[in-house]
Amino acid sequence: MKDPLQELQETFYREIPITKQLGITVENYDGEHLTLKAPVGANINHKHTAFAGSLNSLVTLAGWGLLWLMLRELDIAANIIIQDSTCNYLRPVTRDFSASCRKPDPANINKFEKTLRTRGKARLELQSEIHEAGKAAVSFKGRYVIHLS
Amino acid sequence: MKDPLQELQETFYREIPITKQLGITVENYDGEHLTLKAPVGANINHKHTAFAGSLNSLVTLAGWGLLWLMLRELDIAANIIIQDSTCNYLRPVTRDFSASCRKPDPANINKFEKTLRTRGKARLELQSEIHEAGKAAVSFKGRYVIHLS
Repeated sequence: MKDPLQELQETFYREIPITKQLGITVENYDGEHLTLKAPVGANINHKHTAFAGSLNSLVTLAGWGLLWLMLRELDIAANIIIQDSTCNYLRPVTRDFSASCRKPDPANINKFEKTLRTRGKARLELQSEIHEAGKAAVSFKGRYVIHLS
Repeated sequence: MKDPLQELQETFYREIPITKQLGITVENYDGEHLTLKAPVGANINHKHTAFAGSLNSLVTLAGWGLLWLMLRELDIAANIIIQDSTCNYLRPVTRDFSASCRKPDPANINKFEKTLRTRGKARLELQSEIHEAGKAAVSFKGRYVIHLS
């Protein structure tokens, strides 16, 4: 079986090609947190910090990617769509940046899986964050809808 | 004097270069609404619709661009930064898309200008929307912070 992280990376580039221009790479997954990375250079803005749209893309995809990995672990074929999100830009991002998204706790995953298998559709809210120098720079909450495919 | 729309277009490409990869163009400004456009091709996702991160970039920049034009009209040199936003992805976007942002009413603009000139800093909340086939597909609210430069 292929390495899931490599497969997620290929999925991004194949299915959302702009992720290549954004320079998004899958950095790490420890079974609990998925971390995606992007270079500040490709995503620079007028203030010489990372463009808000690029930061938003990375946190949105961190949640999407975590769900992709979760569904793979649950052996469920499904589509993931973002429904709504809130994003706080707390501090400027001045370097290459990483967004991390943490898995829900097991009870929530069980509930999610049950709903998805019985109704064919389920929602999940996930949080992603970008840190710089030990402080939260971007804080994001996204609600995703998952449909069995 | 240069055409403000052309100058805004050049500002995007010069100061936020990823806007070129996203294919963002300044479409129209009637003194009340600013409209930005992007092609679905460059921003396609796994569902053959526009990627949420690209949609978010366009609505965020519609607000930023409207503020840029407003500040120019007020003859104020200032920096514009997004502080937070909420974004609802109501329907899939299947074609080239436009985001429109409307100016606040004159009373709010006056209040904003007064605060900015006296305190050197002011906030403004703006709404942007993307429509497809006459229906709202993306609805966005962003709070921007403006600092005199």
